[in-house]
Amino acid sequence: MRPSGRQLGEMRSVTIETGVTKHAEGSSMIRVGDTHVLCTATLEDRVPPFIKGSGQGWVTAEYGMLPRSTNTRMRREAAAGKQGGRTVEIQRLIGRALRAGVDRNALGERQITVDCDVIQADGGTRCASITGGWVALRLAVNKLLQSGAIVTDPLTDHVAAVSCGIYAGQPVLDLDYPEDSEAGVDGNFIMTGAGQLIEVQMSAEGATFSRDQMTQLLDLAEAGVNQLVAIQKDATA
Amino acid sequence: MRPSGRQLGEMRSVTIETGVTKHAEGSSMIRVGDTHVLCTATLEDRVPPFIKGSGQGWVTAEYGMLPRSTNTRMRREAAAGKQGGRTVEIQRLIGRALRAGVDRNALGERQITVDCDVIQADGGTRCASITGGWVALRLAVNKLLQSGAIVTDPLTDHVAAVSCGIYAGQPVLDLDYPEDSEAGVDGNFIMTGAGQLIEVQMSAEGATFSRDQMTQLLDLAEAGVNQLVAIQKDATA
Amino acid sequence: MRPSGRQLGEMRSVTIETGVTKHAEGSSMIRVGDTHVLCTATLEDRVPPFIKGSGQGWVTAEYGMLPRSTNTRMRREAAAGKQGGRTVEIQRLIGRALRAGVDRNALGERQITVDCDVIQADGGTRCASITGGWVALRLAVNKLLQSGAIVTDPLTDHVAAVSCGIYAGQPVLDLDYPEDSEAGVDGNFIMTGAGQLIEVQMSAEGATFSRDQMTQLLDLAEAGVNQLVAIQKDATA
Amino acid sequence: MRPSGRQLGEMRSVTIETGVTKHAEGSSMIRVGDTHVLCTATLEDRVPPFIKGSGQGWVTAEYGMLPRSTNTRMRREAAAGKQGGRTVEIQRLIGRALRAGVDRNALGERQITVDCDVIQADGGTRCASITGGWVALRLAVNKLLQSGAIVTDPLTDHVAAVSCGIYAGQPVLDLDYPEDSEAGVDGNFIMTGAGQLIEVQMSAEGATFSRDQMTQLLDLAEAGVNQLVAIQKDATA
Amino acid sequence: MRPSGRQLGEMRSVTIETGVTKHAEGSSMIRVGDTHVLCTATLEDRVPPFIKGSGQGWVTAEYGMLPRSTNTRMRREAAAGKQGGRTVEIQRLIGRALRAGVDRNALGERQITVDCDVIQADGGTRCASITGGWVALRLAVNKLLQSGAIVTDPLTDHVAAVSCGIYAGQPVLDLDYPEDSEAGVDGNFIMTGAGQLIEVQMSAEGATFSRDQMTQLLDLAEAGVNQLVAIQKDATA
Amino acid sequence: MRPSGRQLGEMRSVTIETGVTKHAEGSSMIRVGDTHVLCTATLEDRVPPFIKGSGQGWVTAEYGMLPRSTNTRMRREAAAGKQGGRTVEIQRLIGRALRAGVDRNALGERQITVDCDVIQADGGTRCASITGGWVALRLAVNKLLQSGAIVTDPLTDHVAAVSCGIYAGQPVLDLDYPEDSEAGVDGNFIMTGAGQLIEVQMSAEGATFSRDQMTQLLDLAEAGVNQLVAIQKDATA
Repeated sequence: MRPSGRQLGEMRSVTIETGVTKHAEGSSMIRVGDTHVLCTATLEDRVPPFIKGSGQGWVTAEYGMLPRSTNTRMRREAAAGKQGGRTVEIQRLIGRALRAGVDRNALGERQITVDCDVIQADGGTRCASITGGWVALRLAVNKLLQSGAIVTDPLTDHVAAVSCGIYAGQPVLDLDYPEDSEAGVDGNFIMTGAGQLIEVQMSAEGATFSRDQMTQLLDLAEAGVNQLVAIQKDATA
Repeated sequence: MRPSGRQLGEMRSVTIETGVTKHAEGSSMIRVGDTHVLCTATLEDRVPPFIKGSGQGWVTAEYGMLPRSTNTRMRREAAAGKQGGRTVEIQRLIGRALRAGVDRNALGERQITVDCDVIQADGGTRCASITGGWVALRLAVNKLLQSGAIVTDPLTDHVAAVSCGIYAGQPVLDLDYPEDSEAGVDGNFIMTGAGQLIEVQMSAEGATFSRDQMTQLLDLAEAGVNQLVAIQKDATA
Repeated sequence: MRPSGRQLGEMRSVTIETGVTKHAEGSSMIRVGDTHVLCTATLEDRVPPFIKGSGQGWVTAEYGMLPRSTNTRMRREAAAGKQGGRTVEIQRLIGRALRAGVDRNALGERQITVDCDVIQADGGTRCASITGGWVALRLAVNKLLQSGAIVTDPLTDHVAAVSCGIYAGQPVLDLDYPEDSEAGVDGNFIMTGAGQLIEVQMSAEGATFSRDQMTQLLDLAEAGVNQLVAIQKDATA
Repeated sequence: MRPSGRQLGEMRSVTIETGVTKHAEGSSMIRVGDTHVLCTATLEDRVPPFIKGSGQGWVTAEYGMLPRSTNTRMRREAAAGKQGGRTVEIQRLIGRALRAGVDRNALGERQITVDCDVIQADGGTRCASITGGWVALRLAVNKLLQSGAIVTDPLTDHVAAVSCGIYAGQPVLDLDYPEDSEAGVDGNFIMTGAGQLIEVQMSAEGATFSRDQMTQLLDLAEAGVNQLVAIQKDATA
Repeated sequence: MRPSGRQLGEMRSVTIETGVTKHAEGSSMIRVGDTHVLCTATLEDRVPPFIKGSGQGWVTAEYGMLPRSTNTRMRREAAAGKQGGRTVEIQRLIGRALRAGVDRNALGERQITVDCDVIQADGGTRCASITGGWVALRLAVNKLLQSGAIVTDPLTDHVAAVSCGIYAGQPVLDLDYPEDSEAGVDGNFIMTGAGQLIEVQMSAEGATFSRDQMTQLLDLAEAGVNQLVAIQKDATA
Repeated sequence: MRPSGRQLGEMRSVTIETGVTKHAEGSSMIRVGDTHVLCTATLEDRVPPFIKGSGQGWVTAEYGMLPRSTNTRMRREAAAGKQGGRTVEIQRLIGRALRAGVDRNALGERQITVDCDVIQADGGTRCASITGGWVALRLAVNKLLQSGAIVTDPLTDHVAAVSCGIYAGQPVLDLDYPEDSEAGVDGNFIMTGAGQLIEVQMSAEGATFSRDQMTQLLDLAEAGVNQLVAIQKDATA
């Protein structure tokens, strides 16, 4: 029995609102249950030094949590003087995931930075960031296409992510915070709209899992990502 | 003529929504025109070392801007490795202002941290932070009172703030970003509900102003703060 | 009754010595009672990136306190690894104030950095820094004029500053440290030689003040700045 | 065809030398082909604050690369002033992996820090660090057992790791640097001696992979870890 | 021929003024030619953690240069965010040197921090800091003795320092900046009043020196330190 | 009697192994008793800004200790966020020492960075770094000569270093850690193959030494460096 009363393979209610800030080229607010992430995509006519002159573009991401997005107040990373290890891991993951759905030649020498800021957290913020971040990215790319700056769509497919884990001995989909803090095994699956895998990160803390369980988790993740992709399609229709 | 078409003494439309995040003891979203600031108040049973054992409480504030709250993306301060000078100035100001309306003995040895995070910026973010931050503070203190943890209300009066400046040679109230970036003289007035001054910060960049103008600015500010206090009252009724 | 026995509107004894270091283009040691600040002006043929190519110059300031300029030793900011919030606020204020008296086109594309280092502190270091810093600036600009590098004097007027506050219920001029640490309301007034206001910063900590008091403080400040400007004139005659 | 001429499922030659430094409680030098990592385990009678008084122990890890362990010299992280994102990710992974094989109650309130320093790099340094780090940990724990400080062995099983990826369209085991820099999909599998999974990290950069390929990679990993566990057994016999 | 016209073994004019700041327990301004260093000694009733409870005291030093103490403005270390390598080396040297003349048992568990801040630099700032710093230390210790807090004088002898080098092929005493920037070999000799050596630091940049030259330099240093000790005696008489 | 049973003028056993890593242009592992330092020389076709365009080359050094190279684990400097004062001092010393044996015009505009990483420490790591670092530098320069990139050998002589000190009242050569931690006077002598001095650093902590003792220490150092140079010759023959 899950704390929320959800079925093992049942996701929380998910909504994606678009156009939520006036300055960004693309923006979305994704709400996965009580996890709310504001995603903005910024388009800039410059690329990192390592690809300058290559004709290719770049997509990168940054991640942050508002200090009181969590149950007890977290120290502001700007005040602490650095981004913590967890933040760095997550934003590298988001950037890598989004790039897997981008044809960087079609994008041309420009950079899109996707900022994912957690307004309220209840587990699964990195997956929500990827799923909502893709929508912000999609909207910013749409502007580029509409303006005629590029002609071929550089987004090759949807990218969405969901968490899975083993809670109370059973594989469950889309862990909320009470589950996440109890689960000995959990992780994230990032997939394309076509069902290809981009990233699999299963990790155990003080526990292990079998190959059979790995298969069950992959099944749950596939179903979850399918739902998320449908919601992305609605949001960007 | 102001870019927005407003009268010289006319504020932008202001709304204050409360209860906007589930974790914080008090929270508000203040919208002053296109300037949107999320304010949360966190209550903790500890105080800074310099007042430990004094029986007095503390109210402090932190301020941040989301990277794409502005027209062009700002570097994330957590990534830059420190809070910039402007951020530090602003958060010290917010804390000082809010404390002016607090009876720290009545609060008892506990700390309230007011986080003001700018979701969207269009000028006047520090004033919006103070006005919205006071509402978050009010709500957190209400919880303390309702729980019986304290019996005397430690909030002695409202605290609200408004910007004024000299734009195109004329004193104006509540500058938006297009005005703010042009005005040679501008500043902030922080006042109580009873009309007492807490802080006056008028500053000129490449210009100066006369005592007569100072008087006109004070008149505008009084009128503006009166309106803000009324909106605070509605929000916390 | 003031701790020093001074009248309410009486400043401490002020002297400004010039030419106090051999390397700087301009230098002064200002002594306001027991507050002693060494000010140097450095002239460089480069400007910050944001005005490169504009034909305009820049004046900026940095501020520091020697570790034992105060009653108990302060931690050296270089050892702490950063300038504190107070330092950053003060040096931004000094730079802004001095620029208000500069015609940046007449200065041409060069930068003058005014360093204000507090040798001994007894309250009012930021005001002393502005008043003494203007003298160092004046001397450095004189060198530029004498060398023929520029022909129009870029300094449009004197800039001087004085603190005021409400001590024991009464408005007082030029607070020393014992007053400053007791006053619930205090601030700084920066003015030109012609009596125009550049910056007004009144701030209350655990107190408030009325508009009448604000008027009294402005009167005191005007009188104080007049005296300081006269001393600047003598020092740079 | 792999650049090294190896078969798809063929690991590089692996050796683990023990007792390589005189100060550490446990130490090993693992050589996986041209990848050489020095691992030391340090035993301390203190634990991190978050488990103080819990009766449980802690195992953590740190990771570093000598500046010229790589083909072109990397900037020393101590000189750069911080550990990069990749370093932080890797050392968190090593610590998490090793803890999966530790009964923290049996360890008692003490901490073991496993330092993994890459002397020479040719791909797969994080997997080598885990496999070699476990040997250092095993030796340090043996000392604890021999001294009588603890009576129950806190190590519940071997922990070893191997990389897999898709190179030139085919799943391969134990990527060296030339393969690693070409592979669009690669990752790490961490397993116990009993064949349970601890961590699966498959990640694609500019590519994706199917569930069939995932299965093939898991098969390769199982075979590889089996070999590594055998080598660990020989080294610690 | 030396640029200043001095003889090979001739020091610059040296003066030591005492009681130069009102807050410090001991203070001096040492002027060695155009090198001026303000030295303050701060007495605190606490010691560093590594000697807590030992009954012994500690003497330490910090060093800084005002930004425009030099011919071209140096970046302020507080703004740069750290003390440079040269600063760290120098302040460790000053502390070590001063401790060589201190009986730390007689001092008791208290710390004296000697701050040496260079007001104007013309070569030899570290030697001036040691020689002037000892005077500040002497005065602070005198206060301790006069107050009866300690009864045995913890200062066992004078400590003074002078630079020597090989300039234009000849050994010279007390290098000024023009000599220092040309000399291929230079260094510092720190000695006691009794003529014992505390520290010898000879170093060549792009040059070497013979044992005979080393002997000549030691002879010059002895003569120089004798003069400095006499000046210290006058200053603290 | 020395703890190791060595004679006063007897060095520890010294070996220098070359070609110890596959990536570096030159590399050595020097073992001075239980002190083991891995030295690599990296050749780059760029020079620091201050000599760009001068036609001269640069040799610099960096130094680090593995966290468990010492008896108790040291904090990793990369994790601490900066190189400590001791590290900075040592690497500046190594660089300066090596440059004393380099004709920077013959080297041409290229930089060689010598990294010295202490694998195991038992006293004398900085001297071992210089002696072993010179061998790595020699090998890298040999590559340059063999490739024909330069024709004149830029290394003008051997550079080697040894520590000396006063232990239990007697001058001793090559202090190991037990001696080093007891000696009140110790230091380092860096010399060329021809017996010229490059750097003398004698320093006392809580003690002093006489000129006679200085002479004895110089005698010991000369003998020690002669032996080290012979070992360098064997290693690079």
